[in-house]
Amino acid sequence: MSTKKLGKQTIALSTPPSFAGFANVVGKNEGAGPLIGSFDYVDADDTFGQSSWEKSECAMQKQALALALDKAKQAASTLDYLFAGDLLNQCVSSSFAARDQDIPFFGLYSACSTMGEGLILASMALDGGFAQWTGVVVSSHFCTAERQYRTPLEYGSQRTPTAQWTATAAGAAILAQQGEGPYLTHCTVGKIVDKGIKDTNNMGAAMAPAAYDTLSTHFQDTGRSPDYYDLIVTGDLGHLGRELLLELFRQDGIDLAPRHADCGILIFDPKDQDVHCGGSGCGCSASVLTGYLLNGMREGKWNKLLFCPTGALHSPLTAFQGETVPGICHAVAISRQP
Amino acid sequence: MSTKKLGKQTIALSTPPSFAGFANVVGKNEGAGPLIGSFDYVDADDTFGQSSWEKSECAMQKQALALALDKAKQAASTLDYLFAGDLLNQCVSSSFAARDQDIPFFGLYSACSTMGEGLILASMALDGGFAQWTGVVVSSHFCTAERQYRTPLEYGSQRTPTAQWTATAAGAAILAQQGEGPYLTHCTVGKIVDKGIKDTNNMGAAMAPAAYDTLSTHFQDTGRSPDYYDLIVTGDLGHLGRELLLELFRQDGIDLAPRHADCGILIFDPKDQDVHCGGSGCGCSASVLTGYLLNGMREGKWNKLLFCPTGALHSPLTAFQGETVPGICHAVAISRQP
Repeated sequence: MSTKKLGKQTIALSTPPSFAGFANVVGKNEGAGPLIGSFDYVDADDTFGQSSWEKSECAMQKQALALALDKAKQAASTLDYLFAGDLLNQCVSSSFAARDQDIPFFGLYSACSTMGEGLILASMALDGGFAQWTGVVVSSHFCTAERQYRTPLEYGSQRTPTAQWTATAAGAAILAQQGEGPYLTHCTVGKIVDKGIKDTNNMGAAMAPAAYDTLSTHFQDTGRSPDYYDLIVTGDLGHLGRELLLELFRQDGIDLAPRHADCGILIFDPKDQDVHCGGSGCGCSASVLTGYLLNGMREGKWNKLLFCPTGALHSPLTAFQGETVPGICHAVAISRQP
Repeated sequence: MSTKKLGKQTIALSTPPSFAGFANVVGKNEGAGPLIGSFDYVDADDTFGQSSWEKSECAMQKQALALALDKAKQAASTLDYLFAGDLLNQCVSSSFAARDQDIPFFGLYSACSTMGEGLILASMALDGGFAQWTGVVVSSHFCTAERQYRTPLEYGSQRTPTAQWTATAAGAAILAQQGEGPYLTHCTVGKIVDKGIKDTNNMGAAMAPAAYDTLSTHFQDTGRSPDYYDLIVTGDLGHLGRELLLELFRQDGIDLAPRHADCGILIFDPKDQDVHCGGSGCGCSASVLTGYLLNGMREGKWNKLLFCPTGALHSPLTAFQGETVPGICHAVAISRQP
């Protein structure tokens, strides 16, 4: 019997896992943004002391995980499993970062929503009785993403107004069966939603329908209304994607705006930082969660939060072959009380 | 309490999930090999009716999943979750195949060991009480892999003797909380092991130490000796990787040879099919499991089997940057009795 399921897509954890530790590391541009006070480490030149951008991204993951373990007062060897992912081909930032860790490893790919996928699977492992400690770490790097998905930085390509800026950031969370809060209470596992958007420079439009699908399902499965949460945070829809999400809810007679925020909007300053529609990348929502959001919960700013990272599951190859951009969104409910 | 753990890396499932349905589809070359009788569908020209190799691989995943669901006598909507992965950048074969399925989706990346990762996570979801039905599907295609990892087929590049041949194959398994066997009883989650191999045309050597690590840990965690199993099947070490694995066990005074087989060796005929060291790719071990091995168990050929797919977690980019090839191996124990 799957007694822990509510409705079709939501899990209610019987013993909500504790966020025992969490940390993030970011690049220079992110450190110059409005969330500066919530980052554990800001690198001066985005290299993280490495000789290639890919090695830099790998170093970011290692550092974020090490800092999160420190805060949880645990050694890496305590972790029963590590769940990790990134945007690079064959998810190499994660594999190479985990290579020295000696932790049973699960590699994930869910584009910019990977932190959500990782938190869900890590929670299942804990609540199912398969683990006492789990780690989740994800990353993205502007310079690795640009040359892989778009053009080498040296080309100096112009960006379209709907484009988003891949955040140079890594976020890590240590989840435990027991401990101080906040706690992860519910998970809504997303389906792939594709409404036919073909413009890979407009990922907000591609992902907004997936966010709408997962959020509506979450409200239906749990019987909660948006008002139940102090904050509903998508990531990373950006400015345009947020508008589309709000419009989709408006058609259902729901005004999501007062309680909605988006990690892609939060991380950069729209006035002083020229990132067009906002931030993106696995590291964007992960670094906002493991800093601004979870710190805020510990400080009592919010009691109940719904974290809903979004991902665009295309590749340059599928775009060249004329394909549309499928989206996905996973939602996890986080509460100060278990 | 993680009461379901044995030792550091192994899980003993309290209610071993049933392989309720399983199926595979393969390409022409695989269909001309010794396992022809165990494939559900062999495509005549490897296109699967599609206009690009990537779309062909996507079609393979859909077909394998549909056939496995048919055999389990279930609709896709029955599945609580789908776990899927492949070798392509951003795992697009999986995302695009799942786009039309309307099933909560977890994207995985564990190179050629992805079937193992998927079976473990799907089992945790079932045994943890989060699901009643789960699906796992993975794929690889010779033509998509060659142009992504090596050179376009049109170049007609020569292959080195240690190279393996990416199988054009997809395998799918439907796991259920209850049902007829075989049953998945134990999982050993692999760590990343890197012994410094830099030759990406010698993946058997890169992965053999990971297979040794996971297998030895499995025997230690469970207190079982290799003799406990009727068959221990790695995938895909190939001919050279198998020799290295046997040698590593020989150093411990254990002769694994009599009970060992490798999916990369089983799938092609070394005399008539010029694939050098054997087959590889996510679809290789997955199609051997979901045909030859599970059929054989149902027929009573083997009672107890240890399925141990292996993966090489590098990318062309990491190789160009002078990096070594990290390996991983996940092991799942399958039994005719629950």
